[in-house]
Amino acid sequence: MDKKYLDDLQVGDTFSSGEYAITADNIKAFAKEYDPQPFHLDEAAAEGSFFHGLAASGWHTACVTMRLMVDSIPIAGGLIGAGGELRWPQPTRPGDTLHVVAKVLDIKPSRSKPDRGIVIAQIETFNQRDECVQHMQCKMLVFRREAQHE
Amino acid sequence: MDKKYLDDLQVGDTFSSGEYAITADNIKAFAKEYDPQPFHLDEAAAEGSFFHGLAASGWHTACVTMRLMVDSIPIAGGLIGAGGELRWPQPTRPGDTLHVVAKVLDIKPSRSKPDRGIVIAQIETFNQRDECVQHMQCKMLVFRREAQHE
Repeated sequence: MDKKYLDDLQVGDTFSSGEYAITADNIKAFAKEYDPQPFHLDEAAAEGSFFHGLAASGWHTACVTMRLMVDSIPIAGGLIGAGGELRWPQPTRPGDTLHVVAKVLDIKPSRSKPDRGIVIAQIETFNQRDECVQHMQCKMLVFRREAQHE
Repeated sequence: MDKKYLDDLQVGDTFSSGEYAITADNIKAFAKEYDPQPFHLDEAAAEGSFFHGLAASGWHTACVTMRLMVDSIPIAGGLIGAGGELRWPQPTRPGDTLHVVAKVLDIKPSRSKPDRGIVIAQIETFNQRDECVQHMQCKMLVFRREAQHE
Protein backbone atom coordinates (compact mmCIF):
# COMPACT_ATOMS: atom_id res chain seq x y z
CA MET A 1 0.00 0.00 0.00
CA ASP A 2 1.16 3.51 -0.82
CA LYS A 3 1.54 5.18 2.59
CA LYS A 4 -0.24 8.50 3.04
CA TYR A 5 0.98 11.61 4.84
CA LEU A 6 -1.15 14.47 6.13
CA ASP A 7 -0.49 16.30 2.83
CA ASP A 8 -2.07 13.42 0.89
CA LEU A 9 -5.38 13.34 2.79
CA GLN A 10 -8.52 15.31 1.95
CA VAL A 11 -11.80 15.77 3.79
CA GLY A 12 -14.18 13.14 2.46
CA ASP A 13 -11.51 10.53 1.72
CA THR A 14 -12.93 7.11 2.53
CA PHE A 15 -11.21 3.80 3.24
CA SER A 16 -12.96 0.43 3.33
CA SER A 17 -11.44 -2.52 5.14
CA GLY A 18 -11.41 -6.25 4.55
CA GLU A 19 -13.58 -8.57 6.62
CA TYR A 20 -13.20 -10.28 10.00
CA ALA A 21 -15.34 -13.27 10.99
CA ILE A 22 -16.50 -13.51 14.59
CA THR A 23 -17.20 -16.90 16.18
CA ALA A 24 -18.71 -17.90 19.52
CA ASP A 25 -15.27 -19.28 20.44
CA ASN A 26 -13.44 -16.02 19.87
CA ILE A 27 -16.16 -14.01 21.64
CA LYS A 28 -15.64 -16.24 24.69
CA ALA A 29 -11.83 -16.26 24.47
CA PHE A 30 -11.71 -12.46 24.34
CA ALA A 31 -14.21 -12.15 27.20
CA LYS A 32 -12.33 -14.61 29.39
CA GLU A 33 -9.29 -12.37 29.20
CA TYR A 34 -10.75 -8.85 29.21
CA ASP A 35 -14.50 -8.81 29.94
CA PRO A 36 -15.49 -11.95 31.87
CA GLN A 37 -19.23 -11.37 32.22
CA PRO A 38 -21.83 -14.15 31.77
CA PHE A 39 -23.44 -12.61 28.64
CA HIS A 40 -20.06 -12.71 26.86
CA LEU A 41 -19.00 -16.17 28.13
CA ASP A 42 -21.93 -18.56 28.11
CA GLU A 43 -24.87 -19.01 25.71
CA ALA A 44 -27.33 -20.17 28.39
CA ALA A 45 -26.52 -17.35 30.80
CA ALA A 46 -26.68 -14.85 27.92
CA GLU A 47 -30.22 -15.93 26.98
CA GLY A 48 -31.61 -14.57 30.25
CA SER A 49 -29.58 -11.35 30.12
CA PHE A 50 -30.09 -7.90 28.64
CA PHE A 51 -28.53 -9.18 25.42
CA HIS A 52 -30.91 -12.15 24.91
CA GLY A 53 -28.10 -14.33 23.58
CA LEU A 54 -24.32 -14.46 23.40
CA ALA A 55 -22.88 -11.05 22.55
CA ALA A 56 -19.31 -9.89 22.00
CA SER A 57 -17.83 -7.39 24.44
CA GLY A 58 -17.96 -3.89 22.98
CA TRP A 59 -14.19 -3.82 23.54
CA HIS A 60 -13.87 -6.91 21.36
CA THR A 61 -15.70 -5.05 18.58
CA ALA A 62 -13.36 -2.09 19.17
CA CYS A 63 -10.27 -4.32 18.95
CA VAL A 64 -11.44 -6.04 15.76
CA THR A 65 -12.15 -2.59 14.32
CA MET A 66 -8.56 -1.57 15.09
CA ARG A 67 -7.21 -4.73 13.45
CA LEU A 68 -9.25 -4.06 10.31
CA MET A 69 -8.01 -0.44 10.27
CA VAL A 70 -4.35 -1.43 10.66
CA ASP A 71 -4.70 -3.89 7.78
CA SER A 72 -6.39 -1.45 5.41
CA ILE A 73 -5.63 2.21 6.18
CA PRO A 74 -2.20 3.14 4.81
CA ILE A 75 -0.99 6.01 7.00
CA ALA A 76 2.75 6.71 6.99
CA GLY A 77 4.15 6.31 10.51
CA GLY A 78 1.19 4.17 11.52
CA LEU A 79 -2.23 4.69 13.06
CA ILE A 80 -1.70 6.72 16.23
CA GLY A 81 -4.93 7.51 18.01
CA ALA A 82 -5.16 10.38 20.47
CA GLY A 83 -8.64 9.46 21.62
CA GLY A 84 -12.22 9.61 20.52
CA GLU A 85 -15.85 8.91 21.16
CA LEU A 86 -17.44 5.55 20.60
CA ARG A 87 -20.79 3.86 20.95
CA TRP A 88 -22.21 0.47 20.21
CA PRO A 89 -25.68 0.73 18.60
CA GLN A 90 -26.02 -3.04 18.78
CA PRO A 91 -23.86 -5.98 19.81
CA THR A 92 -21.65 -8.14 17.63
CA ARG A 93 -22.97 -11.72 17.55
CA PRO A 94 -21.46 -15.15 16.83
CA GLY A 95 -21.36 -15.67 13.05
CA ASP A 96 -21.10 -11.96 12.26
CA THR A 97 -18.58 -10.81 9.68
CA LEU A 98 -17.41 -7.27 10.35
CA HIS A 99 -15.94 -4.62 8.10
CA VAL A 100 -14.98 -1.00 8.67
CA VAL A 101 -15.55 2.17 6.69
CA ALA A 102 -13.36 5.12 7.70
CA LYS A 103 -14.01 8.66 6.49
CA VAL A 104 -11.90 11.79 6.93
CA LEU A 105 -14.09 14.48 8.54
CA ASP A 106 -11.52 17.18 9.22
CA ILE A 107 -7.79 17.86 8.94
CA LYS A 108 -6.09 20.22 11.38
CA PRO A 109 -2.40 21.01 10.85
CA SER A 110 -0.67 21.61 14.17
CA ARG A 111 0.17 25.24 14.91
CA SER A 112 2.99 24.46 17.30
CA LYS A 113 4.49 21.39 15.56
CA PRO A 114 4.80 21.93 11.80
CA ASP A 115 5.69 18.28 11.13
CA ARG A 116 2.25 16.93 12.03
CA GLY A 117 -1.50 17.43 12.33
CA ILE A 118 -4.67 15.90 13.66
CA VAL A 119 -7.13 14.06 11.45
CA ILE A 120 -10.70 13.73 12.70
CA ALA A 121 -12.13 10.52 11.30
CA GLN A 122 -15.45 8.74 11.47
CA ILE A 123 -14.90 5.01 11.84
CA GLU A 124 -17.99 2.85 11.40
CA THR A 125 -18.03 -0.90 11.88
CA PHE A 126 -20.74 -2.89 10.13
CA ASN A 127 -21.89 -6.49 10.22
CA GLN A 128 -22.82 -8.59 7.17
CA ARG A 129 -26.31 -7.04 7.12
CA ASP A 130 -24.76 -3.54 7.01
CA GLU A 131 -26.02 -2.83 10.53
CA CYS A 132 -23.70 -0.55 12.47
CA VAL A 133 -22.21 -2.32 15.52
CA GLN A 134 -19.78 0.45 16.44
CA HIS A 135 -19.67 4.13 15.66
CA MET A 136 -16.51 6.02 16.50
CA GLN A 137 -15.25 9.52 15.91
CA CYS A 138 -11.56 9.70 16.63
CA LYS A 139 -8.56 11.95 16.53
CA MET A 140 -5.48 10.56 14.84
CA LEU A 141 -1.99 11.99 14.75
CA VAL A 142 -0.66 12.08 11.18
CA PHE A 143 2.75 13.32 10.07
CA ARG A 144 3.50 15.61 7.14
CA ARG A 145 5.56 14.26 4.29
CA GLU A 146 8.66 16.26 5.14
CA ALA A 147 8.72 14.85 8.67
CA GLN A 148 9.86 11.50 7.27
CA HIS A 149 8.85 9.50 10.30
CA GLU A 150 9.04 5.69 10.16
CA MET B 1 -19.42 -8.32 46.54
CA ASP B 2 -22.83 -6.85 47.31
CA LYS B 3 -24.30 -6.04 43.89
CA LYS B 4 -25.58 -2.51 43.40
CA TYR B 5 -28.70 -1.36 41.58
CA LEU B 6 -29.40 2.15 40.24
CA ASP B 7 -31.20 2.92 43.52
CA ASP B 8 -28.02 2.17 45.49
CA LEU B 9 -25.74 4.56 43.58
CA GLN B 10 -25.09 8.22 44.37
CA VAL B 11 -23.24 10.95 42.51
CA GLY B 12 -19.70 10.98 43.89
CA ASP B 13 -19.55 7.24 44.65
CA THR B 14 -16.04 6.00 43.86
CA PHE B 15 -14.74 2.50 43.19
CA SER B 16 -11.07 1.53 43.13
CA SER B 17 -9.86 -1.58 41.37
CA GLY B 18 -7.14 -4.09 42.01
CA GLU B 19 -3.95 -4.04 39.95
CA TYR B 20 -2.91 -5.51 36.60
CA ALA B 21 0.74 -5.96 35.62
CA ILE B 22 1.73 -5.28 32.01
CA THR B 23 4.71 -7.06 30.45
CA ALA B 24 6.49 -6.66 27.13
CA ASP B 25 5.22 -10.13 26.23
CA ASN B 26 1.57 -9.31 26.77
CA ILE B 27 1.91 -5.95 24.97
CA LYS B 28 3.23 -7.87 21.94
CA ALA B 29 0.69 -10.71 22.19
CA PHE B 30 -2.21 -8.26 22.27
CA ALA B 31 -0.76 -6.22 19.41
CA LYS B 32 -0.18 -9.29 17.24
CA GLU B 33 -3.89 -10.04 17.43
CA TYR B 34 -5.51 -6.60 17.36
CA ASP B 35 -3.03 -3.80 16.62
CA PRO B 36 -0.03 -5.19 14.72
CA GLN B 37 2.05 -2.03 14.34
CA PRO B 38 5.85 -1.96 14.81
CA PHE B 39 5.78 0.30 17.91
CA HIS B 40 3.59 -2.26 19.71
CA LEU B 41 5.44 -5.37 18.48
CA ASP B 42 9.17 -4.79 18.51
CA GLU B 43 11.47 -2.90 20.89
CA ALA B 44 13.99 -1.88 18.23
CA ALA B 45 11.37 -0.61 15.78
CA ALA B 46 9.61 1.20 18.64
CA GLU B 47 12.78 3.12 19.57
CA GLY B 48 12.72 5.03 16.28
CA SER B 49 8.98 5.67 16.40
CA PHE B 50 6.74 8.39 17.82
CA PHE B 51 6.62 6.41 21.08
CA HIS B 52 10.43 6.20 21.59
CA GLY B 53 10.16 2.67 22.97
CA LEU B 54 7.72 -0.23 23.17
CA ALA B 55 4.22 1.00 24.00
CA ALA B 56 0.97 -0.86 24.54
CA SER B 57 -1.87 -0.32 22.10
CA GLY B 58 -4.40 2.14 23.51
CA TRP B 59 -6.97 -0.61 22.98
CA HIS B 60 -4.91 -2.89 25.18
CA THR B 61 -5.07 -0.26 27.93
CA ALA B 62 -8.84 -0.02 27.33
CA CYS B 63 -9.25 -3.81 27.59
CA VAL B 64 -7.20 -4.07 30.79
CA THR B 65 -9.30 -1.20 32.18
CA MET B 66 -12.46 -3.19 31.43
CA ARG B 67 -11.03 -6.29 33.10
CA LEU B 68 -10.18 -4.29 36.23
CA MET B 69 -13.69 -2.78 36.24
CA VAL B 70 -15.41 -6.17 35.87
CA ASP B 71 -13.36 -7.53 38.77
CA SER B 72 -14.05 -4.61 41.09
CA ILE B 73 -17.27 -2.73 40.29
CA PRO B 74 -20.26 -4.65 41.66
CA ILE B 75 -23.20 -3.63 39.44
CA ALA B 76 -26.23 -5.95 39.48
CA GLY B 77 -26.85 -7.30 35.98
CA GLY B 78 -23.27 -6.54 34.96
CA LEU B 79 -21.37 -3.68 33.39
CA ILE B 80 -23.22 -2.75 30.22
CA GLY B 81 -21.63 0.17 28.40
CA ALA B 82 -23.60 2.23 25.93
CA GLY B 83 -20.58 4.18 24.78
CA GLY B 84 -18.30 6.96 25.86
CA GLU B 85 -15.34 9.17 25.18
CA LEU B 86 -11.79 8.12 25.81
CA ARG B 87 -8.28 9.45 25.44
CA TRP B 88 -4.81 8.25 26.22
CA PRO B 89 -2.68 11.01 27.79
CA GLN B 90 0.35 8.73 27.65
CA PRO B 91 1.10 5.15 26.65
CA THR B 92 1.21 2.09 28.89
CA ARG B 93 4.75 0.66 29.00
CA PRO B 94 6.29 -2.74 29.78
CA GLY B 95 6.59 -3.12 33.55
CA ASP B 96 3.64 -0.82 34.30
CA THR B 97 1.09 -1.89 36.90
CA LEU B 98 -2.32 -0.40 36.18
CA HIS B 99 -5.30 0.32 38.41
CA VAL B 100 -8.62 2.02 37.81
CA VAL B 101 -10.61 4.60 39.75
CA ALA B 102 -14.26 4.94 38.72
CA LYS B 103 -16.45 7.80 39.88
CA VAL B 104 -20.20 8.33 39.43
CA LEU B 105 -20.72 11.73 37.77
CA ASP B 106 -24.45 11.62 37.07
CA ILE B 107 -27.45 9.31 37.36
CA LYS B 108 -30.35 9.62 34.91
CA PRO B 109 -33.38 7.41 35.46
CA SER B 110 -34.98 6.48 32.13
CA ARG B 111 -38.23 8.28 31.36
CA SER B 112 -39.52 5.64 28.99
CA LYS B 113 -38.25 2.50 30.77
CA PRO B 114 -38.87 2.64 34.52
CA ASP B 115 -36.76 -0.47 35.23
CA ARG B 116 -33.44 1.20 34.33
CA GLY B 117 -31.32 4.31 34.02
CA ILE B 118 -28.05 5.64 32.66
CA VAL B 119 -25.05 6.25 34.89
CA ILE B 120 -22.41 8.67 33.62
CA ALA B 121 -19.07 7.60 35.06
CA GLN B 122 -15.51 8.87 34.89
CA ILE B 123 -13.12 5.96 34.56
CA GLU B 124 -9.45 6.80 35.02
CA THR B 125 -6.64 4.33 34.57
CA PHE B 126 -3.34 5.02 36.33
CA ASN B 127 0.09 3.46 36.28
CA GLN B 128 2.26 2.79 39.34
CA ARG B 129 3.45 6.42 39.35
CA ASP B 130 -0.19 7.61 39.43
CA GLU B 131 0.15 8.98 35.92
CA CYS B 132 -3.09 8.76 33.96
CA VAL B 133 -2.76 6.43 30.94
CA GLN B 134 -6.44 6.47 29.99
CA HIS B 135 -9.25 8.88 30.73
CA MET B 136 -12.76 7.77 29.89
CA GLN B 137 -16.21 9.20 30.44
CA CYS B 138 -18.81 6.57 29.74
CA LYS B 139 -22.51 5.85 29.84
CA MET B 140 -23.53 2.65 31.56
CA LEU B 141 -26.95 1.01 31.64
CA VAL B 142 -27.91 0.13 35.22
CA PHE B 143 -31.13 -1.57 36.33
CA ARG B 144 -33.35 -0.57 39.24
CA ARG B 145 -33.73 -2.96 42.12
CA GLU B 146 -37.31 -3.91 41.26
CA ALA B 147 -36.28 -4.92 37.75
CA GLN B 148 -34.60 -8.03 39.22
CA HIS B 149 -32.39 -8.64 36.22
CA GLU B 150 -29.69 -11.31 36.48
